[in-house]
Amino acid sequence: MTELKNDRFLRALLKQPVDVTPVWMMRQAGRYLPEYRATRARAGDFMGLCTNPQLACEVTLQPLERYPLDAAILFSDILTIPDAMGLGLYFETGEGPKFRKTVRTAQDVESLPVVNAENELSYVLDAVSTIRTELNGRVPLIGFSGSPWTLMTYMVEGGSSKDFRRAKAMVYDQPEVASLLLEKLTLSVIDYLNAQIRAGAQAVQIFDSWGGALAHDAYLEFSLKPMQRIIDGLIKEHQGRQVPVILFTKGGGQWLEAMADSGATALGLDWTTHIGQARERVGKRVALQGNMDPSALYAGKEKIRDEVGKILAAYGSGSGHVFNLGHGITPEVNPEHAGAFINAVHDLSASYHQ
Amino acid sequence: MTELKNDRFLRALLKQPVDVTPVWMMRQAGRYLPEYRATRARAGDFMGLCTNPQLACEVTLQPLERYPLDAAILFSDILTIPDAMGLGLYFETGEGPKFRKTVRTAQDVESLPVVNAENELSYVLDAVSTIRTELNGRVPLIGFSGSPWTLMTYMVEGGSSKDFRRAKAMVYDQPEVASLLLEKLTLSVIDYLNAQIRAGAQAVQIFDSWGGALAHDAYLEFSLKPMQRIIDGLIKEHQGRQVPVILFTKGGGQWLEAMADSGATALGLDWTTHIGQARERVGKRVALQGNMDPSALYAGKEKIRDEVGKILAAYGSGSGHVFNLGHGITPEVNPEHAGAFINAVHDLSASYHQ
Repeated sequence: MTELKNDRFLRALLKQPVDVTPVWMMRQAGRYLPEYRATRARAGDFMGLCTNPQLACEVTLQPLERYPLDAAILFSDILTIPDAMGLGLYFETGEGPKFRKTVRTAQDVESLPVVNAENELSYVLDAVSTIRTELNGRVPLIGFSGSPWTLMTYMVEGGSSKDFRRAKAMVYDQPEVASLLLEKLTLSVIDYLNAQIRAGAQAVQIFDSWGGALAHDAYLEFSLKPMQRIIDGLIKEHQGRQVPVILFTKGGGQWLEAMADSGATALGLDWTTHIGQARERVGKRVALQGNMDPSALYAGKEKIRDEVGKILAAYGSGSGHVFNLGHGITPEVNPEHAGAFINAVHDLSASYHQ
Repeated sequence: MTELKNDRFLRALLKQPVDVTPVWMMRQAGRYLPEYRATRARAGDFMGLCTNPQLACEVTLQPLERYPLDAAILFSDILTIPDAMGLGLYFETGEGPKFRKTVRTAQDVESLPVVNAENELSYVLDAVSTIRTELNGRVPLIGFSGSPWTLMTYMVEGGSSKDFRRAKAMVYDQPEVASLLLEKLTLSVIDYLNAQIRAGAQAVQIFDSWGGALAHDAYLEFSLKPMQRIIDGLIKEHQGRQVPVILFTKGGGQWLEAMADSGATALGLDWTTHIGQARERVGKRVALQGNMDPSALYAGKEKIRDEVGKILAAYGSGSGHVFNLGHGITPEVNPEHAGAFINAVHDLSASYHQ
């Protein structure tokens, strides 16, 4: 494999010295970029983009052409696993993802297969290897999966939800059914992420978008525990390099101590958490990723720079910080403001790494 | 005024000894009750119910007829203030609240009046005094208001929002406009809550439904600071009795220490916070209210009882706890399960007050 030309991102995750704080943006290949919208229009629809490795590679690389980002992230959807389980993922214009089949009873769960990624998600693995080749060692490539709990919410609800009524009712009223569903998802995610690592992903992130909707005890049991099992089951090292795992529970700021004991290399923070307090709470156990409010990108460039400076100061000196937004960049952001954000991280962080 | 027959709720807020832990439910007069749905049908629509003091009184008292609740809460909407400012609140079937006018520019904000509750919200004050008379000392009556930040989100967005894009853009890009809007809302809320207290409310709750959407620093500046100013401006004692103030920021679990310094008597907790850890964090400064996941009411009665028991045990011995859900009760809940919840609190809590 080609030598990495920029390994700041991997070094920061492992708390090794870096020259400046590395930065990438969740959803950096997204609708705020006109070049993304053009490729997506060519693909026809969102799933057409995800299932075409050449086009997925194209959009993955677009933000790297514009900005000095320190990592690329596989372009895909978090719902590929339930789709591969046979639920029939589709997207309606202006609405979120939907499934043709839902999973609500013990029988529904029993009949679900565990996913074999090499067989059923080869289009994702092809995208990973294509991107890795095209990157040619420029920056590391991040693979990812949704967390079991997050995937479960979509499968039980049949799509997006405001209150996760049915999924949470299953947790309280049929905990053994919820646990079996989570078990099948856990095994599927392990297989999926390991296949991504073998195909070329140099770090992986678990997106637990909806863990924050759970009560304290339910989070530990139904979201964190399956994620811990995934981390245990992942390939630790590939081609002589450690494969870091980033755990991101949106709304999980109250549970950082427990998350830091999960075996993850780093925790993703959403924008509600004070990153300096988070660093104190997790100690040396994990690196931190985050966490500017994506809404701050609606402000002027000077204000964006101020916000970046506040987060750098709150984290303080030394390695172990990967800068990011606290959630995905939104479609309405001016791409120049995203550029100001990225430049500010590199400009302002050097003094924290002397 | 009539002597209070059951003052457990007020005593617990002030950390005075109680025989059992008092309990009420946010949105206890709500769609899960068939008698509520019947009255609402008679009223025509939701605002018809809010603006008719007799009907508002009727639905306020309905849950007290069914359950041994320890407090009544005024039936009203959090958006009465922006409506009184002239924005034209309306509800479309199956959707959230909407405003005919939005507030997005400096000029929009400058032209907004501060609300005088006696003049413009007399229907709410009439409801308060009617309910207080009808209660006849049975339990205390809670008045309430939305927080300035929460009201601002609806006013800027023109209704409900998933990401508060426009309101948060105002915070980052036009902070002085946001501050002026919050200032006018703060003065209006002070006037409104004091008028409710004079009309008979024996405690008040500030509902900060969307404070949890803000970044750490932005929460302190744009949500908590206005609420502190409100607390400073409230009548402390009325007719010889202290008027407790409950501050409830949904999603505010990371900020409890700062909230405890606000001058509030008690903090409301949503279901994501471990109440035992919260008690340690806030110390003796405030009482706590909460915090069972409303979704637990979808489970069977035994499971509901277990969940109540876990929260009581987590809080531990002594006064200072008002039991509640971590958010409003949902329309799909079986009223018998709500009853099981309330009974479990009284049954299981006695041993913590010996």
